[in-house]
Amino acid sequence: MKPVNIGLLGLGTVGQGVANILIRNANEIKRRTGRDIRVTRAAVRNQEKAEALNLGIDITTDSQSLVTDPDIDIICEAMGGDEPALTLLHTALDNNKHIITANKALIAVHGNSLIDKARDHGVSVAFESSVAGGIPIIKALREGLAANKIEWLAGIINGTGNFILSEMAEKGRSFEDVLAEAQALGYAEADPTFDVEGIDAAHKLTIMASVAFGIPLSFNGVYTEGISKISREDVEFAAELGYCIKHLGVARRREDGVELRVHPTLIPEKRLLANVNGVMNAVVVQGDAVGPTLYYGPGAGSEPTGSSLVADIIDVVRGIDANMLHRVPTLGFQPDSIEPLNILKAADYQAAFYLRLQALDKPGVMATVTGIFGELGISIEAILQKEPDEAAIDPAMCTVPIILLTGSVKEGLIDQAIERVQALETVVEPVTRIRVETL
Amino acid sequence: MKPVNIGLLGLGTVGQGVANILIRNANEIKRRTGRDIRVTRAAVRNQEKAEALNLGIDITTDSQSLVTDPDIDIICEAMGGDEPALTLLHTALDNNKHIITANKALIAVHGNSLIDKARDHGVSVAFESSVAGGIPIIKALREGLAANKIEWLAGIINGTGNFILSEMAEKGRSFEDVLAEAQALGYAEADPTFDVEGIDAAHKLTIMASVAFGIPLSFNGVYTEGISKISREDVEFAAELGYCIKHLGVARRREDGVELRVHPTLIPEKRLLANVNGVMNAVVVQGDAVGPTLYYGPGAGSEPTGSSLVADIIDVVRGIDANMLHRVPTLGFQPDSIEPLNILKAADYQAAFYLRLQALDKPGVMATVTGIFGELGISIEAILQKEPDEAAIDPAMCTVPIILLTGSVKEGLIDQAIERVQALETVVEPVTRIRVETL
Repeated sequence: MKPVNIGLLGLGTVGQGVANILIRNANEIKRRTGRDIRVTRAAVRNQEKAEALNLGIDITTDSQSLVTDPDIDIICEAMGGDEPALTLLHTALDNNKHIITANKALIAVHGNSLIDKARDHGVSVAFESSVAGGIPIIKALREGLAANKIEWLAGIINGTGNFILSEMAEKGRSFEDVLAEAQALGYAEADPTFDVEGIDAAHKLTIMASVAFGIPLSFNGVYTEGISKISREDVEFAAELGYCIKHLGVARRREDGVELRVHPTLIPEKRLLANVNGVMNAVVVQGDAVGPTLYYGPGAGSEPTGSSLVADIIDVVRGIDANMLHRVPTLGFQPDSIEPLNILKAADYQAAFYLRLQALDKPGVMATVTGIFGELGISIEAILQKEPDEAAIDPAMCTVPIILLTGSVKEGLIDQAIERVQALETVVEPVTRIRVETL
Repeated sequence: MKPVNIGLLGLGTVGQGVANILIRNANEIKRRTGRDIRVTRAAVRNQEKAEALNLGIDITTDSQSLVTDPDIDIICEAMGGDEPALTLLHTALDNNKHIITANKALIAVHGNSLIDKARDHGVSVAFESSVAGGIPIIKALREGLAANKIEWLAGIINGTGNFILSEMAEKGRSFEDVLAEAQALGYAEADPTFDVEGIDAAHKLTIMASVAFGIPLSFNGVYTEGISKISREDVEFAAELGYCIKHLGVARRREDGVELRVHPTLIPEKRLLANVNGVMNAVVVQGDAVGPTLYYGPGAGSEPTGSSLVADIIDVVRGIDANMLHRVPTLGFQPDSIEPLNILKAADYQAAFYLRLQALDKPGVMATVTGIFGELGISIEAILQKEPDEAAIDPAMCTVPIILLTGSVKEGLIDQAIERVQALETVVEPVTRIRVETL
């Protein structure tokens, strides 16, 4: 089948993410779609800089020529801002091209007209990457939870704001102090208004609410309150009461309408959302049938955002030759691309281990045990030795638990070590062995 | 367009969930698909009991007649077990019907042959509900993360086992003690082997691994270790070391093959997975582009599982009339079903509030403040009053912070209360007001 040609508007952080993923994972993506997908042309402002990236893409500064190019099937917009992005996307639709964008402000404010035009032309508008970076939340709302009447959703959908609040909570720092650091780290813009005053979150909330409730994109209806007035004391007092402060976007359906609101919020500290820290994003969705589900992941960045944008490309490509079986193959890969892989035996796994031995409380036991691990080249990360039971009748036969955390090791090797430890006369019960994963 | 007719094999917990959702959310689902979808017939063992449910469904004990019924478009299998489910699904495929199943054992062990036959007949096999209940994890793996080479995934995918481990950790109880309670509560079967020995988790892991890596369903390759040998002491020692013990299913791609394993695992207590408690499920997926994403929700139950099964029905229906725009409408609802809803003003929101006032440290201040809330009918859930600063120069002018947590109240009302409190001479700084959400 002929390759699908992508035209990329913009080759900055997100555009490069898209190009890199399509190049690196070309084989995996062909296994999933049955088609070759390649970025053939990119329109940029600085031709020299873009050509220096050496991506094998035809570079132009004439963005108009891209959106009218008859050889291009799908236009991906990764330039940001209002104009010329909006006009270019309209022109692409007029030329019957599918459009995919990461531009949340554009969709939240101008999406309705783009969607209408796309419908007239029989093409797609896709915007998974415009909300919550790499988290496939639009797909979850439109498809995964399609059986539900969505009652509400609440999300941490601005990484910069969450980084600031997390640092304030963890380190007792002030808003101004952390903001300055976030700007130095490149998490926050020189003008941080969009992030800290909740405008960026309001754009994303607008899009999620529309997809959750089936309402037109309604950015002007969002109530927005920022985090710049949250003080260090409030963060501390909230903690004393058992809460974390998070900047949430909330959309709630009521009998008499919908609430669309972005504001600082106290959340009970035990909730998963309260434990979403740093630049990560998460969204909780309450459906009437499923109850609560949560989606968590990186909210920004080159390849996380690129992951969602390329997922949209794959969706469109799977739809282009739409017979149902071809769209999404049952196992996610094309039937003739399903390949058996060598399924490894447990002895070949690599893991760190928690080991608990019950040993006689005699001198030299610990040295013998750790000696065995040393000989086998297994490192010990932590040792916990408990006091013997004082009430033991015969102190000489008194046993104590010894807990070891090992470094990462082949399972075959840990089994050898256990066998040798178990054989010691001073070790009196079977050794308990549990794997450790830092995930 | 003509309605889509569903035939339901089994009308137990899951089958009733499917029927109830399709009836209750008929309108919402039609807005999403453009089609009426109804369960027309159900095959059961006990006709009388099923008819007593009064679901308006034609009930039969002749399951064979269901899977050959020319009026039925899609067969949903919610009976469980091996046979007759497998033979019935094969017959349904032979009759060119799409099949959807919640039966993880069936897919993990016999899925390859069902998928091959479905392909020959040009129909779908769908099984979102077979893994992690209401969490749309199959969709995330097959579509949302399709840009990625999946590196590994790790999940808490058995609610019974997680309930037992959570109770052991939170309350210091023994495995046997909690298992007995879980059986009494109906979370665990009389024979709990499938749950606590990891066989159920191995079925689900088999399915996720296949979809993540594009490999044939390989249940026999899964290494499985149960949780029945985890002792109360291990849970406590792990906690002392900063870890939780969870029963994980892990699939990891390596240069030389894949690891497929289910076993108890220590996880650092700060990780979100370590905080997934009770009967909830969660899966972390590591993609090469997106990094880590996490999916959390109820792992079982009538409507959570029904939610996923109905999502599969909607997917199939959207595919039946597969032109791309019709498949998944851009906003998730059919264009002529997009309805504006009244977008509420902030004064109409209902929330609990955290309020911080800075007040002079004089007798009677607290009584006056709480009096205002009482008059407006606003309940106070918690009060935190800090000691005055001892070093203050003029004790009469010394101020103290007072923190109030209110009950749920209309925002308009809280604003009235704040206005009156703010007007007090003893309240010296603007009142800080932050919303509380228990989610």
